[in-house]
Amino acid sequence: MNLITISREFGSGGRELGKRLADLLGYDYYDSEIISAIAEKSGLDKGYIEKALEQHGWQNYPITFNASFIAPIYTDPGRVDLLQDQKAVLDEIAAKGKNCVIIGRNADVLLEKYDPLRIFVCADMDAKVKRCFERASEGENLTEKEMRRKIKQVDKARAQTRAILSGSSWGDPQGYHLTINTTNWDLKALAGALASFVNTYFEQ
Amino acid sequence: MNLITISREFGSGGRELGKRLADLLGYDYYDSEIISAIAEKSGLDKGYIEKALEQHGWQNYPITFNASFIAPIYTDPGRVDLLQDQKAVLDEIAAKGKNCVIIGRNADVLLEKYDPLRIFVCADMDAKVKRCFERASEGENLTEKEMRRKIKQVDKARAQTRAILSGSSWGDPQGYHLTINTTNWDLKALAGALASFVNTYFEQ
Repeated sequence: MNLITISREFGSGGRELGKRLADLLGYDYYDSEIISAIAEKSGLDKGYIEKALEQHGWQNYPITFNASFIAPIYTDPGRVDLLQDQKAVLDEIAAKGKNCVIIGRNADVLLEKYDPLRIFVCADMDAKVKRCFERASEGENLTEKEMRRKIKQVDKARAQTRAILSGSSWGDPQGYHLTINTTNWDLKALAGALASFVNTYFEQ
Repeated sequence: MNLITISREFGSGGRELGKRLADLLGYDYYDSEIISAIAEKSGLDKGYIEKALEQHGWQNYPITFNASFIAPIYTDPGRVDLLQDQKAVLDEIAAKGKNCVIIGRNADVLLEKYDPLRIFVCADMDAKVKRCFERASEGENLTEKEMRRKIKQVDKARAQTRAILSGSSWGDPQGYHLTINTTNWDLKALAGALASFVNTYFEQ
């Protein structure tokens, strides 16, 4: 099984790159599917899971159960359970033994024993801000300053979550096979170049 | 002109990778040639230039003139002149307008206006130590601990030299298009994969 994990800075285009890469390689692709599977396991709301696992680090967050509001979590055990559920879902994906691309979720660390090709995707702050504005959902009216702050916050939370799981630092090139700065790339062209690069890696 | 700059951690195999890449692409290749050209410009000894520019940072170092010992330098002006000579040599290379690969020498910063494809090459410490022992010259009998220290010292000096020239940090992925960890790669296979990657970049 060829397993590719993609970690990425918020707004770097890592998700789109991973999807394009999976399509070109004919690999399975896992992103929000993982959250759905955790929701099924835990009975918790997808939005809650996503935020609890990543976007808000270990902060308290109102909890919902099957989309119904219950109560704020003020303790860590809920988060730990979620991390365990996440690990279980990732293990199930890997156990299928099919070539795949997994976006985020610390899959590079949690599935380390499968020796994944670990890719980190970054970009210049200006490029990330531009991308975030382009894909911002309606009603999300952030100023540029607020967008920069949001990008930094999300990445900080990702780094913190990884720090809980691994000795290596999120974004440190030593922890990845390849670190790609998407700033000057057309993502479609980059995905093509990357697909060829990846094939050589797995064939060597 | 397609210009590729390769910055690298000591012992990562960046130099070999760059040479193989240049050969595969049919690009000119510049490494020790740059030191020779500076020696010609300045009349200084090649060994001195190399150490003064990189390996020993801004420390004092005995100076030789046309390979004859003169005196220790206790001031900075000599180093500044050398950096200027280095810049002049790099400018002359770029002015030729021919596709090329340049190893080290902060060419990514000094030739920024030519919009080089900036590659950084790193590797795990264990892999770097192994490579350094394999290529160590006769008489260089370092213990493993000493070799680790040497690797860290060389990289620290490289980072310091870059800090003088640029606001961005040496080795920070934001400053490069691509950061490659050579640890699990066969360098010949990697050079092939990289050549194809590079061609896509310049063609997009």
